[in-house]
Amino acid sequence: MEILRTIKEVREFKRANRDAPLVLVPTMGALHEGHTSLMKIGKALKGKMIVSIYVNPLQFGPDEDLDNYPRQQKEDIEICRSDGAAAVFLPDDEVMYPGERFTAVRVGSLQDHLCGAGRPGHFDGVTTVVAKLFNIIEPTHAVFGLKDFQQYMIIKKMVEDLDFPIEIIGGEIIREAGGLAMSSRNKYLSPEERKRALNINLALTYIAEGSADGKLSADALISDAIAKYLSGIRIDYLDIYDSKNLKPVPRDLPLKGDLVAAGAFFVGSTRLIDNMRYTIR
Amino acid sequence: MEILRTIKEVREFKRANRDAPLVLVPTMGALHEGHTSLMKIGKALKGKMIVSIYVNPLQFGPDEDLDNYPRQQKEDIEICRSDGAAAVFLPDDEVMYPGERFTAVRVGSLQDHLCGAGRPGHFDGVTTVVAKLFNIIEPTHAVFGLKDFQQYMIIKKMVEDLDFPIEIIGGEIIREAGGLAMSSRNKYLSPEERKRALNINLALTYIAEGSADGKLSADALISDAIAKYLSGIRIDYLDIYDSKNLKPVPRDLPLKGDLVAAGAFFVGSTRLIDNMRYTIR
Repeated sequence: MEILRTIKEVREFKRANRDAPLVLVPTMGALHEGHTSLMKIGKALKGKMIVSIYVNPLQFGPDEDLDNYPRQQKEDIEICRSDGAAAVFLPDDEVMYPGERFTAVRVGSLQDHLCGAGRPGHFDGVTTVVAKLFNIIEPTHAVFGLKDFQQYMIIKKMVEDLDFPIEIIGGEIIREAGGLAMSSRNKYLSPEERKRALNINLALTYIAEGSADGKLSADALISDAIAKYLSGIRIDYLDIYDSKNLKPVPRDLPLKGDLVAAGAFFVGSTRLIDNMRYTIR
Repeated sequence: MEILRTIKEVREFKRANRDAPLVLVPTMGALHEGHTSLMKIGKALKGKMIVSIYVNPLQFGPDEDLDNYPRQQKEDIEICRSDGAAAVFLPDDEVMYPGERFTAVRVGSLQDHLCGAGRPGHFDGVTTVVAKLFNIIEPTHAVFGLKDFQQYMIIKKMVEDLDFPIEIIGGEIIREAGGLAMSSRNKYLSPEERKRALNINLALTYIAEGSADGKLSADALISDAIAKYLSGIRIDYLDIYDSKNLKPVPRDLPLKGDLVAAGAFFVGSTRLIDNMRYTIR
């Protein structure tokens, strides 16, 4: 497995491997079984797989956890190796943002709700760094986890709107025993908080199953879910959205179409996101 | 020469020509000797040259000349053929903007002055369509005319900031006899207006030569130039800028460094731009 640290090294790797499909799995490191499942998807495409590991400062707000974000480069490299990556791209800030930045890529109204509402600039940071990674690596495919469903949708839309010649593939959420969605941030949780965090998945399951039942409105389902499961958890947002345009569903019945129940939650001081996608006909 | 109208056709052309350098000359058609000089640069690179012809609605303001912008597809195709293009890409709006658009590429403060100040959204339209063309065509080189120096700088910065693997080449301004910069919009001018328009180049030359002389401030040079040459011409903007960051130079002496005297002017109802780049040590 090759370790690439500069854009020049990536372009050389590209040249040496130009006939194979090239699958990018972009990550911020602190790899866990969720990432391993994305790499499994990448490997199944039978090309070369390149994993990028970069904690992108552009997508962190001033009060967020950039400095404390878990970093474990040595372990990450070993995980990529054993998961079958052909190369790891490990740029530093000097490689990614060498001078004054002028350019941003912005995906408009898909940012209005979910994490976009409470994290101004976050998704501009994501789309800008992903556009850069796409241009540096020029993959034929890129795999994104569906745990951040809004990010997946925004990247998909960016690729469509800007005609990147890249196929975007979504990887299903991987959960720990008990249903907690895998996240690099789960490391922050104390044993008690980890137990409390299991209620997130229970709440989303309740909302999805209740939607199918068809008796309660979105508002009623959400306030029930909060009352039943989320008393010890601070809610950043929680709602049911149209999964095509990420707008909150109408407040009155019936709930219909392709939906996603999604939320962000603080368990102690750790922010966790999760979602459940479902269709009601 | 191949005529390509869809993204699929472009990608097929790409596949068949993947070993040659691919030079893109992006245009809005109504080709003139300025474009021919860009194509000459393209041909000198000894790869395949693809000329795109697309009047991009995104870069026209609501009161601008989108509907009346000169269109002459047959003549343009013949010019590309005789100038040595391997292919012409002629997309329509349905190919370029098939659905609801969410994504824009924005190059920040380089838009603050020159045409950016009076044409809000114009350069977002330019960068967005150029990013699309880059992703559709995947050229190794792209040639842009220096008549729109701000556009050239913005594209160069976009390429640098987003790591497009493309070399941007600037093509010198080509002038008619008398010094009028070639422009598709020169077609709008009556014979009398064309004669009046010659003063634009005289005014810019006066400013550049006066800057070298070192006795007058930017303000004095500009008001002199207006008084001497531009009485019959409405000025949209006219100033001396730092050619690296496109900020107006300080108002007091000395004028120093890499500069560009640039302006936009209405001759009758026709908007013309021109500039002169120079260095004072």
